Amino acid sequence: MKKINLYEANGFSEKTFKNLLVHDSPYFKILNFNFKAGQELPVHSHDIEGQASLVVIEGEGEFLGKDGATIPAKAGDVLISDISEPHGLRAKTDLRLLVTIAPPI
Amino acid sequence: MKKINLYEANGFSEKTFKNLLVHDSPYFKILNFNFKAGQELPVHSHDIEGQASLVVIEGEGEFLGKDGATIPAKAGDVLISDISEPHGLRAKTDLRLLVTIAPPI
Repeated sequence: MKKINLYEANGFSEKTFKNLLVHDSPYFKILNFNFKAGQELPVHSHDIEGQASLVVIEGEGEFLGKDGATIPAKAGDVLISDISEPHGLRAKTDLRLLVTIAPPI
Repeated sequence: MKKINLYEANGFSEKTFKNLLVHDSPYFKILNFNFKAGQELPVHSHDIEGQASLVVIEGEGEFLGKDGATIPAKAGDVLISDISEPHGLRAKTDLRLLVTIAPPI
């Protein structure tokens, strides 16, 4: 077993969102992204099999999709996206995001 | 893409913890467990390959391991456990837990 606390292990930066590798194994990869208000993870996709979950731990913003689509994002939201489907996030307040990718890429 | 909000989709019950299947796919299974203070997910394990992440969304309690071991659990904690390793959770306050299992079982 291994434990990490997201609030203690990762902070925020005025320059760009802060990225923390929480876990990587043959089964899944878990990443934490912290965004200051206004920062974003640009829309991206990878042409491979698998899915990602994007969990908003705290804060508000919007999930980004293809062709400029947006979906409101707030604490407690879980977004499921195919890895091959364009996805991203823009923060309106300081926002902590937990991303799980399976299989890991 | 699919979105679910944990605070809106699942509540609490005085009888036992409340279980919500958030997502199930060939890549991972995502479950939400809500515990009233004092409720617990008993220690369990499965003799198969894979790992689970246990994310405390809100509340306080303790993760349970083999032979009565306990690890403090609070909001923002991410616990990684092999599926074959005994794991569980006991809530000291009302607690929301998000569990991701890969590969799904």
